[in-house]
Amino acid sequence: FHSKLPRVGTTIFTVMSQMAKDFEAINLSQGFPGFGADPQLFDLVAKYTKDGFNQYAPMSGIPELRDVLAVKTQRCYGYLPDPDQEVTIVSGATEAIFCAITTVAQPDDEVILLEPAYDSYEPAVLLAGANPIHVSLRPGDFSIDWEQVRHAVNFRTKAIVINTPHNPSGYVWTEEDLKQLAALVRERDIYVISDEVYEHIAFDGRSHFSLVGHEELRSKSFVCGSFGKTFHVTGWKIGFCIAPKELMTEFRKVHQFVTFSTVTPIQHALAEYLQNPAHYESVSEFYEKKRDFFCEGLKRTGLDFKPAQGSFFQMAYFGHLSASSDRELAKRMTQELKVACIPVSAFYHDHQDPKFIRFCFAKEENELAEALDRLQN
Amino acid sequence: FHSKLPRVGTTIFTVMSQMAKDFEAINLSQGFPGFGADPQLFDLVAKYTKDGFNQYAPMSGIPELRDVLAVKTQRCYGYLPDPDQEVTIVSGATEAIFCAITTVAQPDDEVILLEPAYDSYEPAVLLAGANPIHVSLRPGDFSIDWEQVRHAVNFRTKAIVINTPHNPSGYVWTEEDLKQLAALVRERDIYVISDEVYEHIAFDGRSHFSLVGHEELRSKSFVCGSFGKTFHVTGWKIGFCIAPKELMTEFRKVHQFVTFSTVTPIQHALAEYLQNPAHYESVSEFYEKKRDFFCEGLKRTGLDFKPAQGSFFQMAYFGHLSASSDRELAKRMTQELKVACIPVSAFYHDHQDPKFIRFCFAKEENELAEALDRLQN
Ligand SMILES: CSCCC(=O)C(=O)O
Ligand SMILES: CSCCC(=O)C(=O)O
Repeated sequence: FHSKLPRVGTTIFTVMSQMAKDFEAINLSQGFPGFGADPQLFDLVAKYTKDGFNQYAPMSGIPELRDVLAVKTQRCYGYLPDPDQEVTIVSGATEAIFCAITTVAQPDDEVILLEPAYDSYEPAVLLAGANPIHVSLRPGDFSIDWEQVRHAVNFRTKAIVINTPHNPSGYVWTEEDLKQLAALVRERDIYVISDEVYEHIAFDGRSHFSLVGHEELRSKSFVCGSFGKTFHVTGWKIGFCIAPKELMTEFRKVHQFVTFSTVTPIQHALAEYLQNPAHYESVSEFYEKKRDFFCEGLKRTGLDFKPAQGSFFQMAYFGHLSASSDRELAKRMTQELKVACIPVSAFYHDHQDPKFIRFCFAKEENELAEALDRLQN
Repeated sequence: FHSKLPRVGTTIFTVMSQMAKDFEAINLSQGFPGFGADPQLFDLVAKYTKDGFNQYAPMSGIPELRDVLAVKTQRCYGYLPDPDQEVTIVSGATEAIFCAITTVAQPDDEVILLEPAYDSYEPAVLLAGANPIHVSLRPGDFSIDWEQVRHAVNFRTKAIVINTPHNPSGYVWTEEDLKQLAALVRERDIYVISDEVYEHIAFDGRSHFSLVGHEELRSKSFVCGSFGKTFHVTGWKIGFCIAPKELMTEFRKVHQFVTFSTVTPIQHALAEYLQNPAHYESVSEFYEKKRDFFCEGLKRTGLDFKPAQGSFFQMAYFGHLSASSDRELAKRMTQELKVACIPVSAFYHDHQDPKFIRFCFAKEENELAEALDRLQN
């Protein structure tokens, strides 16, 4: 059998979550909340199933959810997308990213990926028959070396995939990054796939700059987001894409035949829930407390780190310790210290090892405290 | 913008459902039940959300659902697939079909489609860079002309997409069809993508022959199914794929980056619900009554038909009437008689018009009765 993705194995998230289970370790590897979501959300889903909202939703999503998402977008980023033509509800941000890449990337096109990169970008590029071009973020603070990015662009470049707040590093884009990207896109006719699933998790007074809030960039961008990440229900697999009309028309052609539509009662529940801005405006503060708590404890370990600027991940450097590789360290930590994390080399196509591991701090404080105690050994 | 799917417009299902709404017509076009599902299912979803099953499910689906689906498969088709390696839960049968086609079809491969064909097959083939080869079913009873199928096969043929019970015709495969397909697959090294979403809707004592029950065929097949279709919750977007281990390994690599996983609380609800075989064994009888009721009334119209053998669709022939085309007839019926249906030309890549329209009879009897009254005019 001729594999379409010969180099793909089981994702690191599955591998580490399984290892955590096998060794009864605290699982700070795969990124998902270790606490419950708002019970109001469950009541809403129960209500809408019982009220009979169980058949196909419209392909682009129910109007109520597209409308309220458009209003939220304006509130947060100053631009009101047309809910009928610029907003589509999909089965998770992974589907949004897959469909956006599939929409723009043609065989032999090049698509720029900034590494460390989330593991779904490259396979989507490869399945489109296009070539991923990898540019490394600056080791240390994982900021973007725009000189390097510009260097990677040529006449074959069709798109760039960006991600802010960034997984795994937590780096949050600055206005300068936006300016640089805008200049790049202006010079060359390239599209942007913007993974903004942690849009509501930025710390220390930082603002998330969504590309949808940038007049020039939004005309070339697919902005991909996730309700699951924002509302602590990653297993509900519901996200969205916002793009200008002509791009969205093409995106929907792909989405229509990939999943067609997304779970109807969950769409209705979220449409009602999103009417209260407090539900998303409180998320950064909620996670900042967890980050602070986790970082405070991390100081008492031998690991080196800078506090994450956003996302629910904290990276830690171990280059000064004796561990041979990040995979070795992650394995030993899981099996011996009983704390699972993600080796950051998994986010590099060539598995280079910049000597970082990643922790997910989206957990109850007592679980984090216990993990930190164990890490002191 | 260079469209990846230049010929795709809005699906006929969306167009006709919208027209039904605009003209306040009874909507017998898009295929979805017009009645409620079992409230027990809603209670189960409510229970599992409240019990905290809201984070990512495993990429292949929760073990409980894969296990009970494997048992159901053995019960129905005599073969017990390995739940760990041969069964994957996906976000609807459309995703299963998309991933299966993406898994096998390489650029310049040929994939055989039997027309009339469900509208998602061709775009999936095109997005893979492969070429769809169209073979027409026999006009009249929509049985398969195997001579023609064999004729279409050549060294470039990588796969064939089949569908039984068939949408839109309701044709149910015979043992002879299976034998013919097996002979074809034996001669040439081709894969089968089998759309069996109406597996539990076959009439007049007919059995659905799943490819998973055929030793030779299952070794080359991706069997795609839908819980939404069987349990009257098409909007829940949950389905499955069953394939032999080596094919499933490749299928999962694609699925992993298309949606990653499927709604967790719904998976748990279905895992519990499927433990009672009565829930799926009663579906054929349930729909047979509706088909009989609908066909009885259809006799009183000017339309010609043979009762559907399976699925929840009834086709009707109008070649002896004055209507110029099936699209014209569907439009007039919706706007003037206030009954929406699907023009069957939409299921042909060249929009040929065999003079059939399709009705969905998955509706309450009183709704069907009212539609039939209107159709007598
Ligand atoms: C889909 S599993 C991975 C979850 C996640 O976003 C991460 O851990 O980085
Ligand atoms: C996904 S909308 C189409 C539903 C359906 O299967 C049909 O009407 O044929």
